[in-house]
Amino acid sequence: MASPAASRGGVMPRVLSGLQEALCRLPGVGPKSAQRMAYHLLQHDRAGATQLAAALQHALTDLRHCRRCNTFSETELCERCASPHRDATRLCVVETPIDMNMLEQTQAYQGLYYVLMGRVSPLDGMPPQALALEKLVERVADEKVEEVILATNYTNEGEATAHYLSALLANKGVTVSRLARGVPVGGELEFVDPGTLAQALRERIGYSCAARSPGKTP
Amino acid sequence: MASPAASRGGVMPRVLSGLQEALCRLPGVGPKSAQRMAYHLLQHDRAGATQLAAALQHALTDLRHCRRCNTFSETELCERCASPHRDATRLCVVETPIDMNMLEQTQAYQGLYYVLMGRVSPLDGMPPQALALEKLVERVADEKVEEVILATNYTNEGEATAHYLSALLANKGVTVSRLARGVPVGGELEFVDPGTLAQALRERIGYSCAARSPGKTP
Repeated sequence: MASPAASRGGVMPRVLSGLQEALCRLPGVGPKSAQRMAYHLLQHDRAGATQLAAALQHALTDLRHCRRCNTFSETELCERCASPHRDATRLCVVETPIDMNMLEQTQAYQGLYYVLMGRVSPLDGMPPQALALEKLVERVADEKVEEVILATNYTNEGEATAHYLSALLANKGVTVSRLARGVPVGGELEFVDPGTLAQALRERIGYSCAARSPGKTP
Repeated sequence: MASPAASRGGVMPRVLSGLQEALCRLPGVGPKSAQRMAYHLLQHDRAGATQLAAALQHALTDLRHCRRCNTFSETELCERCASPHRDATRLCVVETPIDMNMLEQTQAYQGLYYVLMGRVSPLDGMPPQALALEKLVERVADEKVEEVILATNYTNEGEATAHYLSALLANKGVTVSRLARGVPVGGELEFVDPGTLAQALRERIGYSCAARSPGKTP
């Protein structure tokens, strides 16, 4: 009888197990999904596999960080930073390009961004020093920024990051604000968690049938 | 004001959206996960991205189908088919290399395999003709196969495949068997679905404290 190891080696050629290991490095992909993905690509979508390999290669080679806002960009300055149509007096600080993407999709913000590419999280080996914060401070000092909107997540790490940044930006002559917390649009109080509801209550705003003051619109 | 399209183009460099599209081709990966994966690879695991690109390339180049059992292999004959220690009188037919892997992990089977690389599923463009079934029939005719174990899934497609294969193998001088259905090991009747329980009842087997007949062990 073949040893279990030898017989298992037979089930999985080295090249295939190598592909599965590589797929396992994707966030949210475990050994089972990696196995399914490898089979799918090799048997049913070889064009997809070629495309993925090429796309990874291109992204690794051609993407850099925008000199100004730190997001991924193919050019030294990303399209947003290079645009003359954005409001340079407002600067929104986000954790990742994904968050920036979400805010852009709202089409409710015309200012500029600064992408931290992370958050303060000492337990994950991310002390404040690991984030490129000097660039942010320099930018706030050098440019015509009037307001910095802290749009880090409302998680523990995101809150810590916002706290750290607000200390860093104090006395720099800019208004520092934070995204509002509260009841979601279309939300029913019955289904909102108590913490959020408490915040919505504490941070309630004056209400009238007139439009909000234009100063409050970013 | 920039048009929404222009502003969206700015959020997502072409190379990055190309990578996200490519990641979306992986089964079970939607646009949101693809976005998270791309960010993770580019910001936190560039080595992983390089590894994945290389692994895909190797797999596309170096993997072929085993001449005998049709599974993925780096060599013309996979290790199992080349092994003199496997029982060549039994042939287990499975849908995918993943299923073969599962059976190997049981360490309860020492016979050989035939991997269909699919299942009969006309609605998904997989009529019986799309599967390499001549190779299977030839092999059953040419070699010393005594029993063909149909280990396709117990889904509609898997059942249809088993049905088709059993017709194809009738009068070929081999015993055709199918994996048992029934209560899972450690299973409580209370939590077994009625269909499975009905099968377990219909296909009940003689029970005594003596060992099963060795002829029934694959």
